[in-house]
Amino acid sequence: MKTLWTNGKIATLNPALGGIGLIEDGALLAENGRIAWVGPASETSAVGSDCKTIDLEGRLVTPGLIDCHTHIVHGGNRAHEFELRLAGASYEEVARAGGGIVSTVKATRGASEDDLVASALKRLDTLLSEGVTTIEVKSGYGLDLESEAKMLRAARRLGKERAVTVRTSCLAAHALPPDYKDDRAGYLDLVVDEILPKIAAEGLADAVDAFMEGIAFDGVETARVFEKAKALGLPVKLHADQLSNLHGAALAARFGALSADHLEYTDEAGAAAMAKAGTVAVLLPGAYYTIRETQAPPVAAFRAQGVKMAIATDCNPGTSPLTSLLLTMNMSATLFRLTVDEIIAGVTREAARALGLQDETGTLEAGKRCDLAIWDVERAAELVYRIGFNPLHARVHGGKPA
Amino acid sequence: MKTLWTNGKIATLNPALGGIGLIEDGALLAENGRIAWVGPASETSAVGSDCKTIDLEGRLVTPGLIDCHTHIVHGGNRAHEFELRLAGASYEEVARAGGGIVSTVKATRGASEDDLVASALKRLDTLLSEGVTTIEVKSGYGLDLESEAKMLRAARRLGKERAVTVRTSCLAAHALPPDYKDDRAGYLDLVVDEILPKIAAEGLADAVDAFMEGIAFDGVETARVFEKAKALGLPVKLHADQLSNLHGAALAARFGALSADHLEYTDEAGAAAMAKAGTVAVLLPGAYYTIRETQAPPVAAFRAQGVKMAIATDCNPGTSPLTSLLLTMNMSATLFRLTVDEIIAGVTREAARALGLQDETGTLEAGKRCDLAIWDVERAAELVYRIGFNPLHARVHGGKPA
Ligand SMILES: [Zn+2]
Ligand SMILES: [Zn+2]
Repeated sequence: MKTLWTNGKIATLNPALGGIGLIEDGALLAENGRIAWVGPASETSAVGSDCKTIDLEGRLVTPGLIDCHTHIVHGGNRAHEFELRLAGASYEEVARAGGGIVSTVKATRGASEDDLVASALKRLDTLLSEGVTTIEVKSGYGLDLESEAKMLRAARRLGKERAVTVRTSCLAAHALPPDYKDDRAGYLDLVVDEILPKIAAEGLADAVDAFMEGIAFDGVETARVFEKAKALGLPVKLHADQLSNLHGAALAARFGALSADHLEYTDEAGAAAMAKAGTVAVLLPGAYYTIRETQAPPVAAFRAQGVKMAIATDCNPGTSPLTSLLLTMNMSATLFRLTVDEIIAGVTREAARALGLQDETGTLEAGKRCDLAIWDVERAAELVYRIGFNPLHARVHGGKPA
Repeated sequence: MKTLWTNGKIATLNPALGGIGLIEDGALLAENGRIAWVGPASETSAVGSDCKTIDLEGRLVTPGLIDCHTHIVHGGNRAHEFELRLAGASYEEVARAGGGIVSTVKATRGASEDDLVASALKRLDTLLSEGVTTIEVKSGYGLDLESEAKMLRAARRLGKERAVTVRTSCLAAHALPPDYKDDRAGYLDLVVDEILPKIAAEGLADAVDAFMEGIAFDGVETARVFEKAKALGLPVKLHADQLSNLHGAALAARFGALSADHLEYTDEAGAAAMAKAGTVAVLLPGAYYTIRETQAPPVAAFRAQGVKMAIATDCNPGTSPLTSLLLTMNMSATLFRLTVDEIIAGVTREAARALGLQDETGTLEAGKRCDLAIWDVERAAELVYRIGFNPLHARVHGGKPA
């Protein structure tokens, strides 16, 4: 079964074409869920005729969007804590009222796998309505073997419940759980000796992540987690340099990380190390906005060094309760001054790279999975310019309308 | 025909109840499009039985939301200008490429009334999907009699095409049109002697607005417009103190304006004058965010003086291409530190006041129009906390599901 989409503006993101790889009057042929051919609409006659044809009527087609950093599976929400903070409550008062990450850990541990799937699906459906076809999901609110595994199983199930590709990351090294608050080494033993091996053995995680920060884990602890991940054959990624420069970017690069994420406080040396290692910079403006950060990531250094930049929602209940990748794109422009081309690449080609999926999706080239987002806009800039408006016309995952 | 909604959390916004006027286990009776009764669900037996009953299943009900400041009717968009700016183009280069407000004036003049309605409906539908039941729409991109009238007629038609209450404001004093760029007095003559009288005679505007700013009109010019509005029996509102303190808030108060809007640079004296005049402060965080302003409006002064605060999208193609009132609510918290209660009141009770509709809508009290937003949330704070997520369950306008 072949399908031909024709008469559209095709943003291929093919790097050989420059910019967003736009073919102004283009067409795309899919066969068995893969892209078989992309090119000018005038050349479709050479492609063959035994195919279903869909007239794009001039619409813009981009690769299906990729949200490459989310914590979309979690129990509860933190709306009450948000309200208390606005009303002037101190951090102590919020903590006494049960707020902070501990409240999400408690709610996540208390939720069944079905509960986690059901609450995540509401958030996921919002992302899918905006043309997302691939999403990464992290654990990190279980912080014990059983609950981390439960989160990752819930994440895997999202990919069965909906037409979306799911990649999972084990973020057991997200925070010190309350039950280990006086035993850092004991928790790291648990992560390295039990959680990671079990999760690897069950194939629950596609990558291993950690949160390296003053309030989380230091470089030595992170390196221990990463060494174990490497031994288990899993790629790594890192929450790095979000609140301070602990040289997380450089550490991530040293381990050949797929990505280092946040990066507000990364320095030139960190950017250079990332460029050399091919580690993608994943920028998360939703967290920057929510915590009212004022230092933007070093975009100029990333450009100068040739570091690839992706952007993502960081959808999480504490610092980025954000379920719109389109809004994230606007924030990347408004808050971080990324260009339209960088932003479109950041939710497609470079986001795929941040997940190690660059051979599978993220561009519209022959051989890639046929993941498309079809938009009722005249130019790609409209996807970035508008705020809180969704011009999606149709979504295609693996060649199928979804 | 009577309808009873029962078993819900009813946020009445009745000021006598404090906060958001919450009735935890409440019910609401509507008859002939008006609210006939609101109270505890336990007392519904006294209300009568010959009514259709809708079980809210514990959901939250608020007054239908009100977007009290929009420029939602306009031709074209400014995505290309947005893209050029991000790519580093100077203001001159943007102007040479046809950018700026002049481009919207040109596109609006060139559009038919049908075109304007069609393009505005797409944006309006996004607002309605979030529970909006009343919207204000300004002219101001026509800047000649015919085009201003066309914009206002298009705005009125939105209220016929959709189940929404529309209030219109004539903003002929928005900018100096290109055809009068060397004749300020001539353009003001046109506004005062021709545009306002004609628009008043045809009943096209419910209020008169102006943009008082260094790049627009000064206090003397604004006062001239307002005097004419008063003579024609129309209330006034003002774009005031957005980029600098020209004492627009005080001028608005002097004319008993329904609202003064933006207000980033308003001082204590301005706030005091507004309080005395009962002029509502309409805060527009979407514009603040988009132009990367760093000075927030004087919220503490408004609180201290007892100035009522509303919030709105300012939906416009240049400085706030924003079509989400829910996102505006989050921005009001994150960027302006309004509390959840202030924000809920700001898109209901106080937004109604900013439009002179406080006796018609904006609270759930007997006698008001039955405009409801019904939400799949446990607490009102969730409406503010989430970013890019729409938990609307149902919308009711004038007693009818819409
Ligand atoms: Zn994260
Ligand atoms: Zn405005």
